[in-house]
Amino acid sequence: MRKEELVQLIGSLTTEEKVGQLIQLTGNFFDAEDTVMETGPLKKIGFNEETFDLYSTGSLLNVVEPKNIYDIQKKNLAKTKHNIPLLFMADVIYGYKTIFPIPIAQTCSWNFDLIEKAAKVMAKECYDSGIHVTFAPMVDIVRDIRWGRVLESPGEDPILAREYAKSMTKGIQGDESILPQDHLAACVKHFAAYGAPIAGKEYNGVELSEEALHNVYLPSYQAAIAAGSKLVMTAFNTLNGVPCTGNKWLNQEILREEFQFPGVLISDYAAIEELKVHGYTANDLESAKMAIENTVDIDMKTSVYANHLPALANENPEIMKLLDDSVLRVLELKNDLGLFEDPYRGLDPLDFSKGKRLTTQHRQTSLQLAEESVVLLKNEQVLPLKKAEKVAVIGPYGEEKATIGFWAITGDTKDTVSLLEGLKQLADEGIVLPAFAKGCNILPASEVDQYDKYSQAIDIDIHSEETMLEEAIKVASNVDTIVLALGESTYQSGEGGSRTTPCLPKNQVKLLKALKKLGKKIILIVYAGRPLLLDEIVEDVAAILYAWFPGTMSGQALANILYGKANPCAKLSMTFPRSVGQLPIYYNSGSTGRPVQASNPNHRFASRYLDEDNSPLYCFGYGQSYTEFAYGKVELDKESMDENGTITASVTVKNTGNCAGKEIVQLYLQDIAASVVRPVKELKDFRKVILDSGEEKTLQFKITEQQLRFYSPKEGWISESGAFNLFIGKDSEDNQQQGRFYLIKN
Amino acid sequence: MRKEELVQLIGSLTTEEKVGQLIQLTGNFFDAEDTVMETGPLKKIGFNEETFDLYSTGSLLNVVEPKNIYDIQKKNLAKTKHNIPLLFMADVIYGYKTIFPIPIAQTCSWNFDLIEKAAKVMAKECYDSGIHVTFAPMVDIVRDIRWGRVLESPGEDPILAREYAKSMTKGIQGDESILPQDHLAACVKHFAAYGAPIAGKEYNGVELSEEALHNVYLPSYQAAIAAGSKLVMTAFNTLNGVPCTGNKWLNQEILREEFQFPGVLISDYAAIEELKVHGYTANDLESAKMAIENTVDIDMKTSVYANHLPALANENPEIMKLLDDSVLRVLELKNDLGLFEDPYRGLDPLDFSKGKRLTTQHRQTSLQLAEESVVLLKNEQVLPLKKAEKVAVIGPYGEEKATIGFWAITGDTKDTVSLLEGLKQLADEGIVLPAFAKGCNILPASEVDQYDKYSQAIDIDIHSEETMLEEAIKVASNVDTIVLALGESTYQSGEGGSRTTPCLPKNQVKLLKALKKLGKKIILIVYAGRPLLLDEIVEDVAAILYAWFPGTMSGQALANILYGKANPCAKLSMTFPRSVGQLPIYYNSGSTGRPVQASNPNHRFASRYLDEDNSPLYCFGYGQSYTEFAYGKVELDKESMDENGTITASVTVKNTGNCAGKEIVQLYLQDIAASVVRPVKELKDFRKVILDSGEEKTLQFKITEQQLRFYSPKEGWISESGAFNLFIGKDSEDNQQQGRFYLIKN
Repeated sequence: MRKEELVQLIGSLTTEEKVGQLIQLTGNFFDAEDTVMETGPLKKIGFNEETFDLYSTGSLLNVVEPKNIYDIQKKNLAKTKHNIPLLFMADVIYGYKTIFPIPIAQTCSWNFDLIEKAAKVMAKECYDSGIHVTFAPMVDIVRDIRWGRVLESPGEDPILAREYAKSMTKGIQGDESILPQDHLAACVKHFAAYGAPIAGKEYNGVELSEEALHNVYLPSYQAAIAAGSKLVMTAFNTLNGVPCTGNKWLNQEILREEFQFPGVLISDYAAIEELKVHGYTANDLESAKMAIENTVDIDMKTSVYANHLPALANENPEIMKLLDDSVLRVLELKNDLGLFEDPYRGLDPLDFSKGKRLTTQHRQTSLQLAEESVVLLKNEQVLPLKKAEKVAVIGPYGEEKATIGFWAITGDTKDTVSLLEGLKQLADEGIVLPAFAKGCNILPASEVDQYDKYSQAIDIDIHSEETMLEEAIKVASNVDTIVLALGESTYQSGEGGSRTTPCLPKNQVKLLKALKKLGKKIILIVYAGRPLLLDEIVEDVAAILYAWFPGTMSGQALANILYGKANPCAKLSMTFPRSVGQLPIYYNSGSTGRPVQASNPNHRFASRYLDEDNSPLYCFGYGQSYTEFAYGKVELDKESMDENGTITASVTVKNTGNCAGKEIVQLYLQDIAASVVRPVKELKDFRKVILDSGEEKTLQFKITEQQLRFYSPKEGWISESGAFNLFIGKDSEDNQQQGRFYLIKN
Repeated sequence: MRKEELVQLIGSLTTEEKVGQLIQLTGNFFDAEDTVMETGPLKKIGFNEETFDLYSTGSLLNVVEPKNIYDIQKKNLAKTKHNIPLLFMADVIYGYKTIFPIPIAQTCSWNFDLIEKAAKVMAKECYDSGIHVTFAPMVDIVRDIRWGRVLESPGEDPILAREYAKSMTKGIQGDESILPQDHLAACVKHFAAYGAPIAGKEYNGVELSEEALHNVYLPSYQAAIAAGSKLVMTAFNTLNGVPCTGNKWLNQEILREEFQFPGVLISDYAAIEELKVHGYTANDLESAKMAIENTVDIDMKTSVYANHLPALANENPEIMKLLDDSVLRVLELKNDLGLFEDPYRGLDPLDFSKGKRLTTQHRQTSLQLAEESVVLLKNEQVLPLKKAEKVAVIGPYGEEKATIGFWAITGDTKDTVSLLEGLKQLADEGIVLPAFAKGCNILPASEVDQYDKYSQAIDIDIHSEETMLEEAIKVASNVDTIVLALGESTYQSGEGGSRTTPCLPKNQVKLLKALKKLGKKIILIVYAGRPLLLDEIVEDVAAILYAWFPGTMSGQALANILYGKANPCAKLSMTFPRSVGQLPIYYNSGSTGRPVQASNPNHRFASRYLDEDNSPLYCFGYGQSYTEFAYGKVELDKESMDENGTITASVTVKNTGNCAGKEIVQLYLQDIAASVVRPVKELKDFRKVILDSGEEKTLQFKITEQQLRFYSPKEGWISESGAFNLFIGKDSEDNQQQGRFYLIKN
């Protein structure tokens, strides 16, 4: 349809019908099975069932079965008065059926072409299943491992988050503004700064300076919007005292004006209704007014718009105008998806399983991303394993298939390759198949009741932990090497998964400590939705592979890495603290006036703790390989540049080890003096380079004035004349190769 | 002198001499013994010894011996060209010789008349010793127990901090603008928000919203300024990316304009020089310019002003004007102190020990404040002790005299009454004198080297810990009741005392656990500079007296409390967390959109942690007594008020126990809906009431529109029409007695 036709269509709607387009419900109201949400009649969530016309609803959430989508769309079109098709939106964050590693793992690959390819696979499966919008990418920067949704975050760095936002949006939507076949609409979330709740506690308020907001937190949302994201989702939290969903500065000044976002702004689940709970509005009427004035186009799963917006709009022409604008944005989205022409977009009524087949190519992409996401944190020359090595796999994650993370709600753990299955696939390559013992449950039984309704899903073995431990020791006693597969439970991370002390479950640590006494080499694999506290166990093991939740191909990726068929190349996108007391800890912290001097590390009056080092356990950008890389000296082609100039930094990287490998070469800058104190280091560029054993390559990084800019609350994005330190190295703590240059502005 | 004379005097100074007035040095340059600071020649800190005239210096820091002050002043007047006397400033925070409880303890008394009385004692001793300015009060709000200077802070609440700021300033300065006899000038610090370093790490950057700054952090500084504080000290930290010492918004817009502060602004120790280290200026010249432009009048202990300000002022008339203004403020302060008339103000050359005598009255005030500062956290009806009870005192704090805290640098631990000494004083009242065993050292030997040069001062007993433990068990085996005196070391809190895990030292916990096995009643006394993590031991003991560092009269106050001669009445001015992972935790947190519902405490999608309760171990305002208090129903005289009206809330409080006691009755409000989300509760008023056994009193609290105001970044201090919840009770978690009223503005 042309825009004029959409405007005409809006003109033909009653106010109630207009508002209907802004309402999003779950499938249960349409008698469809609901994937994750609680069900109940409309009146349970406050709708007036006598006045509200269900078939005026604009969109549905989390109906993800193609047959359901088809049936509901058909029923709706039969009953609705204006032939406006329903929009189907869903939480498909890192895979529909082919599940990829969780986002925090994906960004450890620093391979954004591959991430885009994975997003394309996800889009294709969604498209084939009739889903129109996915609530991805989530691009919330996070600096605190206590928060559960670290899992879905791109991590702590603005540059990585920006690249993730871009590649995900392009992968999901394709490159055209009218959404092409095999793609769907993206919805970047959560606007804004949802990843910084005070004390790492889910849904807690967020307090940030304007400086941090602009320099650290906002760029990833802006990148997704610049890449064309059709939707934006508001965040649950308050930002500096004002809930994001009712935040004028955020939604009007930043989103609509500064970022020029033209698309659909949707509230997070019940966030409009929660304006009242927040103590921001006195009642739902005020909430409705506040949200529509902030151009929030869709009310997800509450009755606030339905119950109050018609009267507000009928009484007030300004609100009617806002309502019309919102409806137009929703209809334009439907139009961009081609739903007026084909309301069953992507669906084949003769074959509803199209999107649900995990094709070989899809699996292969997932495998590759998993292999590039697993981080080798430690290796005392015990990895890769030799084919003939006598190995036992111990631990609850040995045969566990729930390794796809908390928010792969459309995925099926039955499709997952477990670690043992992965190892079996290597059998015909001559590896000696490992023995296995579970050793313990994923969680102690005593902890299970913390998990609300998910408790039922937590599998606690009927064996007593004692018996399991004994069996594990017996099995491990007969081998040379123990591959110990531990991790937090799926239910310990993800939304609502905040933990004050994110460590391995106590029973698992007990298993590790018992095995340690056998004196064998222990290779630890950790499955987790976040960086865990590893300080109490890191010395007990000879190697650590940090698997995160690697997705459908989990076991195959890990088996390939364990036996050297794949060489680990991932580098951390988030800092691993030594203890909770260091939180929040991140590499790009601001300079202090009293940094610790290496010559006097215990100086009382330095910025430090008495009882802990300032350094993290593993820094941002850190990760090992089975080979070694040597960095040559950094060369700068000039000492200074003006605002139109560039400086080229070159460095030669050589693979000095015995096998081919990939190295992520990282360039950091430090603005030595600025009118707003800059971080001690900021990532500005990187290259992922493949090098054969003995091979070397010279890499060139071009530095432009743009990269030297920062946001100043007074002056906006600026650069300032002065000196800059440059570091090129293997991680954020690598200061071996550095240089200095000057920006001299006229 | 009259102001015109001061201006004339300034006119007679060379630029270098003017700058000299802005320089603060330590005593070692004048060959005086230096109390705490490192010594060295002037050139070590960057002065040009050939051009800088030592006798142009304006002030000295931390020369605290009266004889030294006298001698230096005399020598200086003999050598200086314009007869301008030196100002002597010192860190006297909570006592000169008579040491009071540390400030975080003092505010637990909620007795601000008594705090003012204590400040008067401090002022008198300083006056008698020739000190002109004390760097007190420190009024930095703190919400994180990791920070070391919790010790010097009034705690987490803006109202308590404001009252503390007022009473301290009045106590130190007296009520007149020309400083009266027996008083000295106050210097409120650290401007601003020094108590909120990221991750609780000393000197780290601070990030706060404008909302939090105005509503929570700034009022206490403003209160001290309104009470007449002659000086303000800048803070070390950055505030939202800009170092406070060079922060235009803070120093010019807020301090000088909004707060109308006319007095002397002094940098914290070397903070001007640290502008460069912060990465805020490129060199010292820029730092000098930045500081003087921000009206920083005194450069504490660096050569930045001395080396750069003369040239800057000579070249630039605007800077010369700023310099003249600064010099005038410094000279006015000297004049207000009467130094031009009597440069030896307060000193008696025939008796330098006047201020150093701990008079009976001074000790008595310290004792009373200590008794009102010790918080009874737990009591399973084991306290007070009976006179005839067989008691053993165990623990390293039993005979310890270093119970005055890290920053009582002018105090002498020899003057302290230890716990055992305090108990001995009760001997003639018939108590059975307790046996004693140390049990362990205050710190394990292995931890001592974290403490820099202070390591030498940490006393580690030559006995092995094993032997001490055995002795303690032997001694404890023969008694009914163990009084266990534990605590963190003096060196574990205070400036530079940040700890990631502020718990009792491991060896002390080991002692406690060993004693626990004896099955005796354990009464735990905890000495500390901050709330410690007590979760792992709270169940092991029958009672907890939280002593903080109680000052000179430590042992007598505790003995009186243990045996019921004094009834505990203190209530916490800071929240005790259950674990580090809850930090920051404070009672006045903002409302969230998804609070935990009592009916469904484990709901996944509520604002909570999976592994820990949201509640603290002990909440703000909490503290027990040896008697009980019953609260009647809250009565409101009206349901609503307009902006000029008042509402009176009444409540009857009855002492239902067996002994007289003091109860701190607390009034909290909640603004149910506001344009900036308000805290779940805010303290607005309180009364400390004395009740005999069986006595009851009706208390009236008048609520005015002023109390309903909050700072809105858009509109300033405003109140908004709407509903308010009111709670009157014994602590911040007490919701038994509540009411609701409305503000209806015209």
